[in-house]
Amino acid sequence: MTSNTPRQADASEQSLLRIFTVPEDSNSTLSIIEQKLSQDLAGFLGNSIAALEKPLSEIETDFQAFEIPAAPRFVSDYTDEIMQNLVAHSVHTSAPSFIGHMTSALPYFVLPLSKMMVGLNQNLVKIETSKAFTPLERQVLGMMHHLTYGQNDHFYQQWMHSANHSLGAFCSGGTVANITALWIARNRVLQADGDFKGVGREGMLKALRHYGYDDLAILVSERGHYSLGKAADLLSIGRDNIVSIATDENNKVDVNAMRDTALALQQKNIKVMAIVGVAGTTETGSVDPLSELATLAAELDCHFHVDAAWGGASLLSNKYRHLLKGIELADSVTIDAHKQMYVPMGAGMVLFKDPELAHTIAHHAEYILRVGSKDLGSQTLEGSRPGMAMLVHACLQIIGREGYEILINNSLEKARYFAELIEQHSEFELVTYPELCLLTYRYVPNSVQLKLAEAIASNNFTLVARINELLDGLTQFIQKHQREQGKSFVSRTRIRPARYRRQHTTVFRVVLANPLTSHEILAEVLTEQTQIAQLDNEFYPQLMTL
Amino acid sequence: MTSNTPRQADASEQSLLRIFTVPEDSNSTLSIIEQKLSQDLAGFLGNSIAALEKPLSEIETDFQAFEIPAAPRFVSDYTDEIMQNLVAHSVHTSAPSFIGHMTSALPYFVLPLSKMMVGLNQNLVKIETSKAFTPLERQVLGMMHHLTYGQNDHFYQQWMHSANHSLGAFCSGGTVANITALWIARNRVLQADGDFKGVGREGMLKALRHYGYDDLAILVSERGHYSLGKAADLLSIGRDNIVSIATDENNKVDVNAMRDTALALQQKNIKVMAIVGVAGTTETGSVDPLSELATLAAELDCHFHVDAAWGGASLLSNKYRHLLKGIELADSVTIDAHKQMYVPMGAGMVLFKDPELAHTIAHHAEYILRVGSKDLGSQTLEGSRPGMAMLVHACLQIIGREGYEILINNSLEKARYFAELIEQHSEFELVTYPELCLLTYRYVPNSVQLKLAEAIASNNFTLVARINELLDGLTQFIQKHQREQGKSFVSRTRIRPARYRRQHTTVFRVVLANPLTSHEILAEVLTEQTQIAQLDNEFYPQLMTL
Repeated sequence: MTSNTPRQADASEQSLLRIFTVPEDSNSTLSIIEQKLSQDLAGFLGNSIAALEKPLSEIETDFQAFEIPAAPRFVSDYTDEIMQNLVAHSVHTSAPSFIGHMTSALPYFVLPLSKMMVGLNQNLVKIETSKAFTPLERQVLGMMHHLTYGQNDHFYQQWMHSANHSLGAFCSGGTVANITALWIARNRVLQADGDFKGVGREGMLKALRHYGYDDLAILVSERGHYSLGKAADLLSIGRDNIVSIATDENNKVDVNAMRDTALALQQKNIKVMAIVGVAGTTETGSVDPLSELATLAAELDCHFHVDAAWGGASLLSNKYRHLLKGIELADSVTIDAHKQMYVPMGAGMVLFKDPELAHTIAHHAEYILRVGSKDLGSQTLEGSRPGMAMLVHACLQIIGREGYEILINNSLEKARYFAELIEQHSEFELVTYPELCLLTYRYVPNSVQLKLAEAIASNNFTLVARINELLDGLTQFIQKHQREQGKSFVSRTRIRPARYRRQHTTVFRVVLANPLTSHEILAEVLTEQTQIAQLDNEFYPQLMTL
Repeated sequence: MTSNTPRQADASEQSLLRIFTVPEDSNSTLSIIEQKLSQDLAGFLGNSIAALEKPLSEIETDFQAFEIPAAPRFVSDYTDEIMQNLVAHSVHTSAPSFIGHMTSALPYFVLPLSKMMVGLNQNLVKIETSKAFTPLERQVLGMMHHLTYGQNDHFYQQWMHSANHSLGAFCSGGTVANITALWIARNRVLQADGDFKGVGREGMLKALRHYGYDDLAILVSERGHYSLGKAADLLSIGRDNIVSIATDENNKVDVNAMRDTALALQQKNIKVMAIVGVAGTTETGSVDPLSELATLAAELDCHFHVDAAWGGASLLSNKYRHLLKGIELADSVTIDAHKQMYVPMGAGMVLFKDPELAHTIAHHAEYILRVGSKDLGSQTLEGSRPGMAMLVHACLQIIGREGYEILINNSLEKARYFAELIEQHSEFELVTYPELCLLTYRYVPNSVQLKLAEAIASNNFTLVARINELLDGLTQFIQKHQREQGKSFVSRTRIRPARYRRQHTTVFRVVLANPLTSHEILAEVLTEQTQIAQLDNEFYPQLMTL
């Protein structure tokens, strides 16, 4: 049995094995690296949105090597390097003046907790690699379900930890959540029936043939998130069958127009499999009339999904949750904890009103996810997944309802404050009022405002279009230049305001989720934008000489 | 303008805002919590796979509350609590005796780096929230592409950072990677053509009608991962159209059988849209004959995908990469960095041989992902995503090819050693030999081995079946009991070995990826299993009195 004698590791192997053992003394390499990283991070980022502005093409020069390096490197050398070429050129998403996207500041306690989460390296797909993390995730889904649907005690006692039920699915983000919801909706409308084994088993062609439909459709506001189109593509429904319904002057979907469209589709033997309400659109932050949509869904006998990826966090405010009224009537709801719930990137959820909803997508395997097991992976789109639910759990417990009440209310009220500031400023135009904490606006010099008003009054829409086109160029210039200056960041998008005869119009887009964004910062953002406008030598001069 | 006067935050608000500011002094709450967490973690986990064994139903009692708590809590109280009810009942996936799943130990340096990653909270969907993280991710995909396909310098210089091209897609894990690959394959085979706008736009029914196919099919070994079935469901191809092909006595797919099946499908006007080769099956670790599969794919003019989610890491070994020969002929390849590349959970990739492959799933939006932008989100299934690619980047640089060479070779050789140990032990039966570092085996008492051999020799397959059934029960008993004892963990699965006339057989499944797993531990695992067998009072006594 000589070959069974344990062999000795050689020197290079031994030094390699050491990287798998966490050093125990507090003065270890690990602690030194950690301290250095923290100090450097603070130094690099400060209060600006980027440490150093450098064009992307220059940054790319540091990432040209395509061969995995042969020799191992010292951890300290590597961290020094990425501090210079990565961290210094990343985006300070938690800066109080970073108000352009939904990524915000994080409470400091998520940092040690996330290190612990990574260190534990649980895999939530199955109990055997997650154990207590599985009931924890089920509890988080239960709490979010209760926040959304508010069922009674008995409901949660019965279903929250039930092996064959799920109150939702935890996932990496809103896109996977929306896809999961529509996947379930599709599988329900084309479910097993008699000899037919369901669309999941037999595919779309046989499913439509069995049910006698010529096609499927999903109805959603024109402001629906692009992930819905992706879902329709992925699910073989087809992007063209996501039927886009116009919004009214408040950017809410026109439910009557949606009803008319649905009836017209039915006439053509196209089954409306789902309608989607948006609770906080990505571009204007508007909330669709959810109760009316629920009524329509009942009339059409179809799935009602609410995409509250961003807006869902507002349910945590007792003062403002009425803005999402009707959400409790949805069959499924998407909420991202990594948006306004202050959890790090990678924490999405889809909640199911009915704990049996996900049965149509259940799947099993031989080595895990056995029938009757509590493995979470049997009803999720993703397979292996990290224990991110723990960070949601931590925020819910540590911040609590009272803490979230303050945070959400402040955001919404700060947005109203900023809207007022914009309206009172003579050179800005508020394009969409903040229903939640997102608004859009643009810079329009005084003289141009007059010209625009005159052109509208005299029905000269050729001139309106021309002015808006130049303003689009100017808005784009200001937004890019402001980002490059690195002091603050707003994003931009294109929407079609009713007042400009639904012409595409470029606007600044601001999300006021960061608790540290002060009123002073907001005033400075406007001042900076008026100053940048003068620097443009393409659109600004043309606007001035109109 | 009184309403524009910045309002003062009240006391409770001010204390809440403090949680968004990282304390600067090194004796801060943050450091204290971190230290405590680290010490407690070490104390709780030690070398066993679970700190305390407790039935899941008892663990669940700590996770019953379904209402989000009203009042905020102190961070220290919360962390104390989860140490007791979560961490103590999580699974020590990095224990050297945790050899049952693909989740392994992590090099220590990923902990501070992942804390940094979380703190930076980048969102890789778009440059505006990731900046340098975008070129970094493209570089990681480039390096993995080079490892897999080994194209020339010019190729990488041209495509790695090209806005409208991608060498792969980074994602949360192998499931999303496989879905992405098959999504692309489906959209290519049913692409836009003349008036037809493609399956992505028009959906499956019109697509099949346009191309005149009666259905689609995907061919894969019976050992294909369950995510492929999920993909077929999601993509409306139907789980029944994932056609399962038998494996040979070495657990590799029978390519001739696959060819016959493909031709029979063609006869029925069913288009084979893709064949999938597995490079490291989940249950036996086998590698399909990839070169032969590539030839077949060329004959069938279909997409060739290789699922190397787990086995792909073996490409990092110059000594053993020949075991994956032919992988470079695949159109797409799935590799999970969170398996044998020692990266934390949540790091999957799908690589594309052709940088234009993902064009068929490209999508855009108004506020991000604009045409021509370098935003990574325009060609991925997921939307918002964290900067996990950084941890792959770090491992590739710090461990290097030479480091990985040692790690991978050790794993493969340790598996061969363990196989020998099992074969030489009189009471164990090696069921599948480790091609990479995964093997299966079972405990068969001496007397039962004799009876089984006799039954096979005399063609008494009723008796063979009866013996195997009892052995299945015993294997299951031993596996569960061993897990509950908490000293070591092997997993179990059911496979259909040729030698038992393809009867379902329960086996222990071992993955030897942890660099700290010693030969001594392996010997102890077997000793423990022989001891546990005697404790069973259901199957063991019956086997003894056969």
